[in-house]
Amino acid sequence: MRGIMSTPTDFSEMNCSIARSFGVMGDPWKALIIRDVNLGLTRFDQIADDLGVSRKVLTQRLNEMVTDGLLERVAYQQQPVRCDYVLTDMGADLVPVILAVLAWGDRWLIGETGVPAIPLHRGHECRANVICAACRKPIAAADVGGAVGPGGTVGPGTRLIGSRMRQRA
Amino acid sequence: MRGIMSTPTDFSEMNCSIARSFGVMGDPWKALIIRDVNLGLTRFDQIADDLGVSRKVLTQRLNEMVTDGLLERVAYQQQPVRCDYVLTDMGADLVPVILAVLAWGDRWLIGETGVPAIPLHRGHECRANVICAACRKPIAAADVGGAVGPGGTVGPGTRLIGSRMRQRA
Repeated sequence: MRGIMSTPTDFSEMNCSIARSFGVMGDPWKALIIRDVNLGLTRFDQIADDLGVSRKVLTQRLNEMVTDGLLERVAYQQQPVRCDYVLTDMGADLVPVILAVLAWGDRWLIGETGVPAIPLHRGHECRANVICAACRKPIAAADVGGAVGPGGTVGPGTRLIGSRMRQRA
Repeated sequence: MRGIMSTPTDFSEMNCSIARSFGVMGDPWKALIIRDVNLGLTRFDQIADDLGVSRKVLTQRLNEMVTDGLLERVAYQQQPVRCDYVLTDMGADLVPVILAVLAWGDRWLIGETGVPAIPLHRGHECRANVICAACRKPIAAADVGGAVGPGGTVGPGTRLIGSRMRQRA
């Protein structure tokens, strides 16, 4: 997995929403689990079969996702207990973000064979666009700056960027 | 890093734009590097100082990002050669996606201290929204389905989801 194999950095300790978010949702298996659960594959065996992932890795990912608040277990059978995995509001709120990632991948990582899948939104074909909520325009990298927020601090992950953001503000 | 420590799965072999994209950009360090480069921290030492990341890990991530087409090296000095890292079009196109991730983190992972940083778009405060390019409405998870695309195949990562997408189409 190249870049994903890594030192055990705890990104939740960084005071940056990008770092914290990617620490929670950047793992590819987790994004695929959210995709599957949202499309109706809600049981362990279904997800394991779909992804071709080991039961050990899947168990670990699902446990973390429940702990982090992305998924809930809802029992559909007692004795033995069997559960569906369902998205929490927090997990469901990742679906549009994942569609924005998918649109980027469709543009840059898919060759001439054509896209593997077409997302649908209320039944029509859907490409996710990221816009600025204030002016409703698409966001281009060159137009992006940053300002220090009320909770901003200087530390690992933000040691220089705070002063840089002041320059760009 | 919990969920990020993983088996060495090559997500680029999965025929899914979500899997491929997260394999390329899901690593938290890479997202932070794109953040830093886009805000003007373009040199190795600046990025290393800002992130508090080891030189070994940073070198590995930067090399992968150049190989994958997210960054380019542009020499600003010869003898010895010293480089700025600049975003390619492919890398720049990730900036709005990362802002969508940031907005999600601001909503779900930041406590009462307030957000660490406020993104700016053309100088005004900006929250990224993910909308459907077709109908211009925000995308909610419950409204999302999928259809098999022209390049769709059945394999690891898509073993069951293809038939499931047909049901939701």
